[in-house]
Amino acid sequence: MDFSGNHILTIDQFDRGGVEALFNVADKMVPFANRDRITKVLDGAILGSMFFEASTRTRISFGSAFNLLGGSVRETTGFEHSAIAKGESLYDTARVLSGYSDVIVMRHPENGSVQEFSKASRVPVLNGGDGTNEHPSQALLDLYTIKNELAFRGRGIDRLRIAMVGDLKFGRTVHSLCKLLALFKDIRVVLVSPEELKMPANLVEYLREQDQVVIESDALEESISNVDIVYSTRIQEERFNSQEEADIYRGRFRLNQTIYTANCEPNTVIMHPLPRDSRENARELDEDLNDNPNLAIFRQTDNGILVRMALFALVLDVENEINSSARDTIWYTAGRSL
Amino acid sequence: MDFSGNHILTIDQFDRGGVEALFNVADKMVPFANRDRITKVLDGAILGSMFFEASTRTRISFGSAFNLLGGSVRETTGFEHSAIAKGESLYDTARVLSGYSDVIVMRHPENGSVQEFSKASRVPVLNGGDGTNEHPSQALLDLYTIKNELAFRGRGIDRLRIAMVGDLKFGRTVHSLCKLLALFKDIRVVLVSPEELKMPANLVEYLREQDQVVIESDALEESISNVDIVYSTRIQEERFNSQEEADIYRGRFRLNQTIYTANCEPNTVIMHPLPRDSRENARELDEDLNDNPNLAIFRQTDNGILVRMALFALVLDVENEINSSARDTIWYTAGRSL
Amino acid sequence: MDFSGNHILTIDQFDRGGVEALFNVADKMVPFANRDRITKVLDGAILGSMFFEASTRTRISFGSAFNLLGGSVRETTGFEHSAIAKGESLYDTARVLSGYSDVIVMRHPENGSVQEFSKASRVPVLNGGDGTNEHPSQALLDLYTIKNELAFRGRGIDRLRIAMVGDLKFGRTVHSLCKLLALFKDIRVVLVSPEELKMPANLVEYLREQDQVVIESDALEESISNVDIVYSTRIQEERFNSQEEADIYRGRFRLNQTIYTANCEPNTVIMHPLPRDSRENARELDEDLNDNPNLAIFRQTDNGILVRMALFALVLDVENEINSSARDTIWYTAGRSL
Repeated sequence: MDFSGNHILTIDQFDRGGVEALFNVADKMVPFANRDRITKVLDGAILGSMFFEASTRTRISFGSAFNLLGGSVRETTGFEHSAIAKGESLYDTARVLSGYSDVIVMRHPENGSVQEFSKASRVPVLNGGDGTNEHPSQALLDLYTIKNELAFRGRGIDRLRIAMVGDLKFGRTVHSLCKLLALFKDIRVVLVSPEELKMPANLVEYLREQDQVVIESDALEESISNVDIVYSTRIQEERFNSQEEADIYRGRFRLNQTIYTANCEPNTVIMHPLPRDSRENARELDEDLNDNPNLAIFRQTDNGILVRMALFALVLDVENEINSSARDTIWYTAGRSL
Repeated sequence: MDFSGNHILTIDQFDRGGVEALFNVADKMVPFANRDRITKVLDGAILGSMFFEASTRTRISFGSAFNLLGGSVRETTGFEHSAIAKGESLYDTARVLSGYSDVIVMRHPENGSVQEFSKASRVPVLNGGDGTNEHPSQALLDLYTIKNELAFRGRGIDRLRIAMVGDLKFGRTVHSLCKLLALFKDIRVVLVSPEELKMPANLVEYLREQDQVVIESDALEESISNVDIVYSTRIQEERFNSQEEADIYRGRFRLNQTIYTANCEPNTVIMHPLPRDSRENARELDEDLNDNPNLAIFRQTDNGILVRMALFALVLDVENEINSSARDTIWYTAGRSL
Repeated sequence: MDFSGNHILTIDQFDRGGVEALFNVADKMVPFANRDRITKVLDGAILGSMFFEASTRTRISFGSAFNLLGGSVRETTGFEHSAIAKGESLYDTARVLSGYSDVIVMRHPENGSVQEFSKASRVPVLNGGDGTNEHPSQALLDLYTIKNELAFRGRGIDRLRIAMVGDLKFGRTVHSLCKLLALFKDIRVVLVSPEELKMPANLVEYLREQDQVVIESDALEESISNVDIVYSTRIQEERFNSQEEADIYRGRFRLNQTIYTANCEPNTVIMHPLPRDSRENARELDEDLNDNPNLAIFRQTDNGILVRMALFALVLDVENEINSSARDTIWYTAGRSL
């Protein structure tokens, strides 16, 4: 898989070798993300951060990742009313905006829009989320987190046992994660959801075609007893017809420290794509888990910086130059690490 | 014409020597805009980008131009409700905001506001568009594009033959371009518009006083047969009383490849200030022209970066220092050029 | 008082030694804020500028201060609807966002929110204003301005005579300034307000407990005749039940050049937290004072850059490294100074 100069639009672009190459570069980013060292490898380069839909943390994560490589960021947030309203095609928008930067990250509310934009772009485009369709960097940081958490236990991704819990119908992240996991060997996926919010059948079928084991369930406690990872998700209430309909499912599967202790193996890792819903009637991951060292949800978002730095470095073909301009940091950096 | 430390508020500030000096500096920016080289000549300087009216691409073009010179950008978008609502004068706003940066680019919905702001500013102010009044960098990048396109044909701007087509009444860019063209010799301007959307009489008169030839017409095909440039414009629908009134004129003059081939000289250059209206009932420049190498509309927006870099360099008096801090780029830059 | 790695949440954290240490560092920032020199001491560091409530000038002042130290800025403006609406706790928000930067400045409409956020943040947090509660950098820049203006007259802050005028009930800045002044010796505060908009009794009491002299009055002219500083404030109309109620008090105390000449000692300094209300019915500081060299209101906002640079330098523990990476500026910088 060749990254240099290419768009990153979908996790379907990734084979196992591509994932591993990306993760190797992400590992090299640790000293920079930890602020032990700084690099200026992209000094002079400009990221065009085009967020035609709000997503504060994805936007800032990409922007910080680019800054940490030494580059500058030019940004737009919210819909570009003017030009669209005046009848401009996405082709024209892409031709124009791609003249302003060296690489673009784009989020857009419409499925397929980033792909269409990328066809006319003169610089590499990273998909930061196009509607309900794709959000590849999220899936990659999830898998990178799984790799890291298992590595601490002396394991690789092969032979992973994972439970995915919650809204598996509308949750874009679990769909993408299933596709990525299918690239590995002897994966066992336990899918825990209400009947009405089951993982789409084509994804279950796809996993099984790749010789992975898939078990479907609607009971939480028995499903999390023999897994390495519990990947919990929020009810995607914005995708239901009404708040009331979402409330039927909200809070159905709640993990807290008591349930964890009673059911999980020691060191079972807890993940979540965030935001987690901490309201009284939801609490898919209770706050009493905050002191559990296996709660990996904030390591997950931190890993987003590493994975996005790696994507930029690979797409702009500087992954071997990172250290050539590096030096130690001199400011206060204690307390950063999780 | 002296740029150093001065505001750039109107194209009326420019004489022929000023235009040529600017274009010479813009030419020097090509290696940096193309990412063959990077310069840090404005490393440490701050651009205050004050867009009190939305204009994504003008804002990002100015910001990227400043980044390409090595500087940082601090930005505001949207109306500064709070201070204005609390009764602050534009004088106070200017005194305060000009303390935060080395140079300001400002867009504001009210005519004359940028000029008023500049009087109290302690740093140079570039007008990024004040209502329907002035947008000097747009006119300058149009003229720079004309210079470049003709240079490829071994010509200068003198003796230019240009057709301006569409909404010549409300189109701010064609008004400013006429003023700039008047600085050159033996210009022949063919103005093609509906009777109701004619170029203002004072501008026609002004061109003739400078001994330029002006021809007015309401027929497209015969008007574009003997010109170097066809400069097409959009119907400025936001300036009409109703959508319906705008629809009367929309789509009146459509250029497509068939009409181009049948009427234009080989190599006639096609320009447009963008956005072009690609909706079914408009299409002043048909998408079938996208493969025509004489379609210069995206080279135009790219030239905006060069012209804005040159304006910053001249106003901040570093035009002769650009190369002193320059070095080669090391990241992927293929595919950028148009 | 130890700044390194600490949050700056309230002026209650400051003792006299802390204030003086801060001001010593602010003094060192003058050549950089004046653009005589540039420093890159925070090159590679990222400021997370989290403005969940609009405040253009506070936001840009902090951002420019960070840029002037060589750092980059990642920003959010407006309320982060998505995550909050999805039920995320402030704890989670803080854990996530603090992974993206080296230091955070945060403004938020709710009292106490920045303090709560800081508890979960892994990097130092500077309070940029939390509702009506605290805005410590504003109070510090006010006191720094007092120090500087008196220093020109060969005086220190001890034995200051100051009149605070206007809306002393709702004006957050005068409350904080009183607390800071209480750290010094022999302060004499004349409080001039309508009866209904008096300084809260607990602050008056606090000043007196520290052996400061407090005089309350509702007459302007006699109150400004024996003071070093007149600190005027705007009627905080957004805090009243109606525009009509605010109008009762608006314009009650107006200072103009005639009143100044007739009543004030020569060189009495005029301050205001800005924005000043320049509408006909307000004009707490008339525009005819703009040419009075003792009008310090724009020096005040300029000092905000110095104080914020100093806060960043101290919190990130680089206050002794500022000059190690410094060099002269090469671009046009004339006309900046007030």
